[in-house]
Amino acid sequence: MSRNLSSVLIANRGEVALRIIRACREMGIRSVLAYSQGDKDSLPVQLADLAVCIGPAGVAQSYRNLHAVVSAALTFGAEAIHPGYGFLAENSEFAAMCEAEGIIFIGPGSDIIRRMGDKIEAKKIAREAGVPTVPGSEGAIDRFDEALAVAGEVGYPLLIKAAAGGGGRGMRVVENPETLERDLAEIMSEAEVAFGDRAVYIERFLTDVRHIEIQVVGDGVSTVHLGERDCTAQRRNQKLIEEAPSPVLDSELRSQLARSAIALCQSVGYRNAGTVEFVFDNRERTFYFIEMNTRIQVEHPVTEMVTGIDLIKLQLHIAAGNPLPLSQDDVAFRGHAIECRINAEDPDQGFRPAPGTVARFRSPGGFGIRLDTHIESGYVIPPFYDSMIGKLIVWGVDRDEAIARALRALDELCVDGVTTTARLHAAILNSEIFRDGQFNTAFVADFLAAREPSRA
Amino acid sequence: MSRNLSSVLIANRGEVALRIIRACREMGIRSVLAYSQGDKDSLPVQLADLAVCIGPAGVAQSYRNLHAVVSAALTFGAEAIHPGYGFLAENSEFAAMCEAEGIIFIGPGSDIIRRMGDKIEAKKIAREAGVPTVPGSEGAIDRFDEALAVAGEVGYPLLIKAAAGGGGRGMRVVENPETLERDLAEIMSEAEVAFGDRAVYIERFLTDVRHIEIQVVGDGVSTVHLGERDCTAQRRNQKLIEEAPSPVLDSELRSQLARSAIALCQSVGYRNAGTVEFVFDNRERTFYFIEMNTRIQVEHPVTEMVTGIDLIKLQLHIAAGNPLPLSQDDVAFRGHAIECRINAEDPDQGFRPAPGTVARFRSPGGFGIRLDTHIESGYVIPPFYDSMIGKLIVWGVDRDEAIARALRALDELCVDGVTTTARLHAAILNSEIFRDGQFNTAFVADFLAAREPSRA
Repeated sequence: MSRNLSSVLIANRGEVALRIIRACREMGIRSVLAYSQGDKDSLPVQLADLAVCIGPAGVAQSYRNLHAVVSAALTFGAEAIHPGYGFLAENSEFAAMCEAEGIIFIGPGSDIIRRMGDKIEAKKIAREAGVPTVPGSEGAIDRFDEALAVAGEVGYPLLIKAAAGGGGRGMRVVENPETLERDLAEIMSEAEVAFGDRAVYIERFLTDVRHIEIQVVGDGVSTVHLGERDCTAQRRNQKLIEEAPSPVLDSELRSQLARSAIALCQSVGYRNAGTVEFVFDNRERTFYFIEMNTRIQVEHPVTEMVTGIDLIKLQLHIAAGNPLPLSQDDVAFRGHAIECRINAEDPDQGFRPAPGTVARFRSPGGFGIRLDTHIESGYVIPPFYDSMIGKLIVWGVDRDEAIARALRALDELCVDGVTTTARLHAAILNSEIFRDGQFNTAFVADFLAAREPSRA
Repeated sequence: MSRNLSSVLIANRGEVALRIIRACREMGIRSVLAYSQGDKDSLPVQLADLAVCIGPAGVAQSYRNLHAVVSAALTFGAEAIHPGYGFLAENSEFAAMCEAEGIIFIGPGSDIIRRMGDKIEAKKIAREAGVPTVPGSEGAIDRFDEALAVAGEVGYPLLIKAAAGGGGRGMRVVENPETLERDLAEIMSEAEVAFGDRAVYIERFLTDVRHIEIQVVGDGVSTVHLGERDCTAQRRNQKLIEEAPSPVLDSELRSQLARSAIALCQSVGYRNAGTVEFVFDNRERTFYFIEMNTRIQVEHPVTEMVTGIDLIKLQLHIAAGNPLPLSQDDVAFRGHAIECRINAEDPDQGFRPAPGTVARFRSPGGFGIRLDTHIESGYVIPPFYDSMIGKLIVWGVDRDEAIARALRALDELCVDGVTTTARLHAAILNSEIFRDGQFNTAFVADFLAAREPSRA
């Protein structure tokens, strides 16, 4: 008989807050939503069992305010805190604070968050677990002569990355030796400003790559994987469209990736859902570990649709101290799923955020359609937060059906009054290159350039 | 390479019209919607590729008007007609008219519709195919002495059924010999009035039964089954909640049912999706054929959710003259699905239809939720048609998760301004008897009686 959490404080907003409320509701767990004044009229506030305002709209004073969140959890007797993604989800200080207060942080231990959050340390853990990593410096670089030596081995172009960066932030491509010294100095001081940490490292810059990640779940003793997601369709290192399975993997590569992800998790006794991210070199057909996210990801529904497994419920189950309720043999895959991140942005104006009032909202429906969104008719999109207003996830027996279904759903979707990226998604899904499935991380940029002759 | 229909006229309304439009859209088939004036502002009219008004709101002049529908199909060059369910879906005269005009009727041939529509003939076909049928008269009864003789064999209570009835219409329970003569006379004249056919037959009245049906798809040569749906939760012979798999079948009974359904279809060279309906005797744990529906059914999504197979697309594929694209081995089952039919009715007022304006509509969302509905905020539910305004279909890894998810979704669903059966569904799903899964077709009536002490 498994134990259930009694109540969970949700330290997040938008669709992921709603996602967690739904899982809690289905499991009979009391949900306490910690929200900012900027979200007071939001759907999550309406649907949570209890909603507690923890501060003004600005994230520093609310969603990123460690003390406000912990204090709300203590005041309202929440047994655990679910951080969602972003905000405090990978803040090891926050996790440690929860640990100190006797609150269950839904994630791995603060030590694992810290180690995986340090990209240099994470790469070291991977190497020690026998997981291939991108050729480059073995540790932090802080002198030009070190950088020059590493550059001599990996060649140009190369990448300087901040150890504390991630999600495309804190990295720079160096095309040739002439700019190396200047670039190194600049990215180090940028890293200092952005992350409070000057540490950087160098990696070979791979140009014809895909982004493929493995979803894992561990209970601290064993780990199972739930297959891969292909997130190659990115814009400026931000994922746009994710799918499972990847259109380029064969079963041998797929199991190599999975074995690597599991080896990494097992080497640290990982507990929680997590994602092990890899770059896949299209020419060499080989892969390298890049980082691990120790939290639920935006694109987790893609995996849920092909496995049938509710990842948030799994997180809640493990956080309560239960062992994994499933073994690797219980995980089976069916069909193909695609997620489109719908943002309130204007693709014709450089993706400028387009907050405003949703005059009329209509969700697409029917077979194979899932919409995870916190918006509804009359909702005022606040200007303070990320511009993602929903995720359309579709399922089909195969990739072709999933694409056709996504196009049909994008056509039905109505978000009157606000400019969104929905039409751009349709254009991308409709393109021959996307349909064909053979592309790399430069695809979206090339696609956008081709559609805007003035910029090409 | 399979052939695709070029365009399909949809001779229906509401959620099923939308369901067919969606399938056409995903397959690249042009959809032409034939609608009545009563539906001019409906979502299907907005979403079809072309919408054609075929007459006034009254169904006799529009949705049941054979000539108006055929003439619209001819005028707008539709290659095929999809009748949905209800209206002309099992009208053999209409199917024959399509055949004569060279329009593909999406269904079996008119002859099969006619034969299966005649319950006496259908029972005969079943017996000849070796399918168990409810003990009773072998053919039509029209004299009291015949009825008395059959009654002597079958025992009381027994059932008199109109050959042309179905869906709970045209039947009567006879408790004892005293009323047999009068009941026989009355049901015969009622059948004459309602169906234009006096033919009736007699069957043993089984009291502790479930309603279990098998979804089949045939291409005229071979037939595959897509498992069962359990539709035991009925009110006055109208299905309320359907689920798959059935909570009471074991694998042996399940395959016996499937074999029977396939034998029946193969014996007539069945082409189209179809449903073979059985009663399942709880005490004897045995089943009897009751009727076959030669059309898509309201509850088809339940099967789609557990098999991943799109039944409407399959109908369109077969109607184009293609062979079945899948064999029995390709059909796999995953998890549990439950459908709740949401009606605009007031359960506290004897289920009186409650048409009106939907002031605000909010769809539930997230993992495992499917809503098939034609309503949206501001929609005026017309008083002319069936009161079903949507179907909530949920999927879960098992029955418990499906029930929890359905309750969560019913809680999120908002249909302000109109009284619906949504809360009643929640109450039923929450009941111990439903959760337990062990009930019979009297369950809903008993449940309703228990909640209204004045009626009990």
